[in-house]
Amino acid sequence: MTTRAEIAAAAARIAPHIRRTPVIALPGEAIGAPCAVTLKLEQMQVSGSFKARGAFNALLSLPPGEAPGGVGVIAASGGNHGAAVAHAAGALGVRAEIFVPAIAAPAKVARIRAAGATAVQGGATYAEALAASEARRAATGAAAIHAYDQPEVLAGQGTLARELEADAPGLTHLLIAVGGGGLIGGAAAWLAGTDTEVIAVEPDGCPALHDALAAGRPVDAPVGGLAADSLGATRVGTLMFAAVRGTVRTAVLVTDEAIREAQRRLWSTLRAVAEPGGATALAALLSGAWTPPPGARVGVLVCGGNCEPGSVA
Amino acid sequence: MTTRAEIAAAAARIAPHIRRTPVIALPGEAIGAPCAVTLKLEQMQVSGSFKARGAFNALLSLPPGEAPGGVGVIAASGGNHGAAVAHAAGALGVRAEIFVPAIAAPAKVARIRAAGATAVQGGATYAEALAASEARRAATGAAAIHAYDQPEVLAGQGTLARELEADAPGLTHLLIAVGGGGLIGGAAAWLAGTDTEVIAVEPDGCPALHDALAAGRPVDAPVGGLAADSLGATRVGTLMFAAVRGTVRTAVLVTDEAIREAQRRLWSTLRAVAEPGGATALAALLSGAWTPPPGARVGVLVCGGNCEPGSVA
Repeated sequence: MTTRAEIAAAAARIAPHIRRTPVIALPGEAIGAPCAVTLKLEQMQVSGSFKARGAFNALLSLPPGEAPGGVGVIAASGGNHGAAVAHAAGALGVRAEIFVPAIAAPAKVARIRAAGATAVQGGATYAEALAASEARRAATGAAAIHAYDQPEVLAGQGTLARELEADAPGLTHLLIAVGGGGLIGGAAAWLAGTDTEVIAVEPDGCPALHDALAAGRPVDAPVGGLAADSLGATRVGTLMFAAVRGTVRTAVLVTDEAIREAQRRLWSTLRAVAEPGGATALAALLSGAWTPPPGARVGVLVCGGNCEPGSVA
Repeated sequence: MTTRAEIAAAAARIAPHIRRTPVIALPGEAIGAPCAVTLKLEQMQVSGSFKARGAFNALLSLPPGEAPGGVGVIAASGGNHGAAVAHAAGALGVRAEIFVPAIAAPAKVARIRAAGATAVQGGATYAEALAASEARRAATGAAAIHAYDQPEVLAGQGTLARELEADAPGLTHLLIAVGGGGLIGGAAAWLAGTDTEVIAVEPDGCPALHDALAAGRPVDAPVGGLAADSLGATRVGTLMFAAVRGTVRTAVLVTDEAIREAQRRLWSTLRAVAEPGGATALAALLSGAWTPPPGARVGVLVCGGNCEPGSVA
């Protein structure tokens, strides 16, 4: 299990490389929510999503001399993790090869290449890109950085909850979008035993955590819809499942239309651009898929902005 | 002359209605600047620009009973001031009629109407829209809220510098884009006598302050180029000129291409959307039109985001 000490160590390790992203509090009526809401604007993170936190922590945790040699690092990604690993590898002088599925957003593939990494696109889903990356890893000996099911990645993502707790103390609920579960796993590990309840949100087209909680273990789930390129893991990680079971009771499901509407409101209210996966947590609050109890003090992670900006208006 | 006491009073007056917008510090290499830079993300303000500060302060300073009656308020605007007055009037239950020139961005006109105000579009420039609004005001008796040359407006805009000074202390230089000069006038009033030097930036197509400083008084200047819809005042205000003369020695001029590049970098680095006028101050730093002295601690106001989001990539 990821511990608070590991997350605090990760925060110190990655601090020179990542941004302390802004937080803004809005009255509910400003954005059409049933209560006031505190947004963590993590789409402004380096590489455009929270994934930079786990990527830097994993790279900086490699045994000395392992990665900066000829073989470098390898990752599979729907796009954001790949962009993050590419950015972190570039910043640290490490070679990187990123496997992305055909559904990866062109903006994300372009960012991977702009960061100096090799992007290999193929396979229909993240799971197929992962299989291709594993074959390549076996052939090359590169160090793999998993998109979510790796302790250093979970600890890195957990730094986001740690930062928000410091900058917006007293939240009773924190809404987090779930793909493979690295972010919510790290956040749940940080917030375990605190007064902040973590609420999982998934698109109804990518219900991997919802199905896992129903089955009592990670199971294969469908992958589809608007946010599949960032939240389209076929099954959640075993590490995250251990971190959230017992504290996250259900994963709220939202429609693609609710996600689009959340993107539009972030733009019209705040001139903020979130990709579909980045607006998914907010969609649960705005659409009524999740209803805050009376007196709730609600936080929402806006976790990524790697899309065409014109797509949000 | 606007005083610090008036600005502090304005801050208290408008606090329930505006946002304390985020600040983010970036290393220079992240955004291609010659030094680290602190950005005040005022494009996230209500109504999409700093203009909400002055609009609320002016509306809330009207004599009791003057505005909320049948005639309401009237304003002329390149768009952002109009959107701000429309928003503030809507929030306070006051009728508003906004005169905008033909060059006003469609996004701004749409926001004026969405806020419940009447938008009257006509005339080639802001100056012509202002003349139309003055005729209408004379006929109706509505209270006018000037876009920049009104004490309550200057004091309201000055709250932005006050907020930044509190949230990012120790800046040696603050870059501010200039149209009619309400923002820089308010900021200069707040920062007079401090260690923060104000640097004025204008598009080379709208050099109203540059020409005024050269002439020693506000004079008519050309209006054109990419940022004309937000910075296209024909001449700066007399109030702002009194506030900046003696402290702002020159207005740095930037090209439209430098403004476009600053918009692109705000997007690619930070997933932030700034309209051309909102990116103009940053353009001076990125293009080298203004060079920071050694040891400078530089702040930049990103002052508006009312554009089509797809236009920034």
